[in-house]
Amino acid sequence: MVSAVAQRLSWIAVDWGSSNLRAWALDAQGEVLARATSPQGMLSLAPGDYEAALLDAIGGWLPDSGRVAVLVCGMAGARQGWREAAYLPLPARLDDLQRGAVSPPVCDPRLAVQLLPGLCQTREGAFDVMRGEETQLAGLVAHEPGFSGLVCLPGTHAKWARIERGVVPRFTTCITGELYGLLARHSLLKHSIGNDDPSVAGDREAFVAAVRQSHSAPGRYSAALFGLRAADLLDGELPSGAARGARLAARLSGLTIGLELAGLGSELDAEAPVTLIGDAGLCARYALALESLGHASRCLDGEAAVLAGLSLAQASRQA
Amino acid sequence: MVSAVAQRLSWIAVDWGSSNLRAWALDAQGEVLARATSPQGMLSLAPGDYEAALLDAIGGWLPDSGRVAVLVCGMAGARQGWREAAYLPLPARLDDLQRGAVSPPVCDPRLAVQLLPGLCQTREGAFDVMRGEETQLAGLVAHEPGFSGLVCLPGTHAKWARIERGVVPRFTTCITGELYGLLARHSLLKHSIGNDDPSVAGDREAFVAAVRQSHSAPGRYSAALFGLRAADLLDGELPSGAARGARLAARLSGLTIGLELAGLGSELDAEAPVTLIGDAGLCARYALALESLGHASRCLDGEAAVLAGLSLAQASRQA
Repeated sequence: MVSAVAQRLSWIAVDWGSSNLRAWALDAQGEVLARATSPQGMLSLAPGDYEAALLDAIGGWLPDSGRVAVLVCGMAGARQGWREAAYLPLPARLDDLQRGAVSPPVCDPRLAVQLLPGLCQTREGAFDVMRGEETQLAGLVAHEPGFSGLVCLPGTHAKWARIERGVVPRFTTCITGELYGLLARHSLLKHSIGNDDPSVAGDREAFVAAVRQSHSAPGRYSAALFGLRAADLLDGELPSGAARGARLAARLSGLTIGLELAGLGSELDAEAPVTLIGDAGLCARYALALESLGHASRCLDGEAAVLAGLSLAQASRQA
Repeated sequence: MVSAVAQRLSWIAVDWGSSNLRAWALDAQGEVLARATSPQGMLSLAPGDYEAALLDAIGGWLPDSGRVAVLVCGMAGARQGWREAAYLPLPARLDDLQRGAVSPPVCDPRLAVQLLPGLCQTREGAFDVMRGEETQLAGLVAHEPGFSGLVCLPGTHAKWARIERGVVPRFTTCITGELYGLLARHSLLKHSIGNDDPSVAGDREAFVAAVRQSHSAPGRYSAALFGLRAADLLDGELPSGAARGARLAARLSGLTIGLELAGLGSELDAEAPVTLIGDAGLCARYALALESLGHASRCLDGEAAVLAGLSLAQASRQA
């Protein structure tokens, strides 16, 4: 018996990252018929494992016969993934990612899989790469054709992309989330910092002060990190208990995001608001950091953006 | 039978850090009669373990009767050590550390142990602590009474101390060595960076360029870290094999030391050379970094400095 999804299925969108997979079943009008997630990300898969992992997640949506288009963005297209979809060089049009797509080998005759490429910046002294985030940027352009502005995708490796009329001329990656995690969980600060990720609500004032401190004196970042530990030993004004760890976590987060923002320099001087795309809590933290430095921003949902970007690429695949 | 050391023994100097212990047997003229080291550092000991660990290292030097002075600096005097020797507040005279010494409980009647204090800086916004390094600074003052200048003790937690006529008015700790280790061994860079610590000889040019890059744009530190990974993926000019990891390690070291030097700001503007105290290889790396920014320096041996500092404190204990 053919499932209700299979009867209306037009194509399947997949965001396949390092540590998980998210898939959407879509009808011809772009309506989401079903969603699936899987913990089988690129880091846990060998090239020969991808087709089975994909079928585990979406097999139930497929009709008994006929081929279904499956469009994939993210690390599945990395060199160490399913099959390499070579990076597109800059400047790159975001409504044309499809031109760099590749088809990995598949056995199931119902699957017509394509992997979207990432972007690379090969300018001497500013080497950079992204893979997955370009599709979120494409989602922004899908909703706002001809968009121009500065976009930030916060995360483990935060991406800052300049977009000019739908084209990416340059971008920068900061390892802000990774730095925070290493320092909070593996450095001398691990005994001082709370275990939870800091929330904006947690200690807004401490966070904002630390953003400003690091932004105005980025060279003092390394000293400020030791200062958190020394404050834990010496500062009688710190609260006790969980509030103490939360305050120090908010400061660590603020110092690290402030360093990131200091590095953007004139890229941030424009009067237009920054567009933040990603997890709502993390975007809110960045919005507060930007606000504390006098910059406006708006937040867009990361999952909606990647689906819109895959849909834009799928439309150009059909055109 | 009394050992040759015991016959001439006057006192025992001990540098007892987080991860090891170094001890020297000295005669009345300050000549070193014997040396001992032990891997039993503060991190591996509970308060009740210290006396036995000390006797393991120096028991063979003790005479059958009579009390021997044992003067200890370092983490053994921390709150979580043998017994807390409270930090001396700034400004602190380096020829008078002895006034903050405490005696831990001992059972062996031959031991008269004292633990030297560390230093703390409680100025709002600049909390800082040191424990062990103050004794190396005292060693410098022992050799050069009335010394004034900027002193750096490179390491996991690098200390930069201003000394004015033998007094410390301020200092700063940077977690440069810890940052390097976390990034080289636990971050996205672990697959790109060589396993060995970078040596100055390894890739002098890459190191110097990275110092200057980070010093001139400290806010770009986080982006420069991701840039090392992207260069490993994209830069056709990188050598292959072990030289590739060594070059990227030299860049990581240069970026991290350059960030540290950027944070010193006007502290570094004086015309006097910086005095580096510590491991010869690490001091040479800092000397090269300073030279690349136009600053002169000189290197002093760390072990000789700590012994000279303990000797100065022992002399004032007897006075």
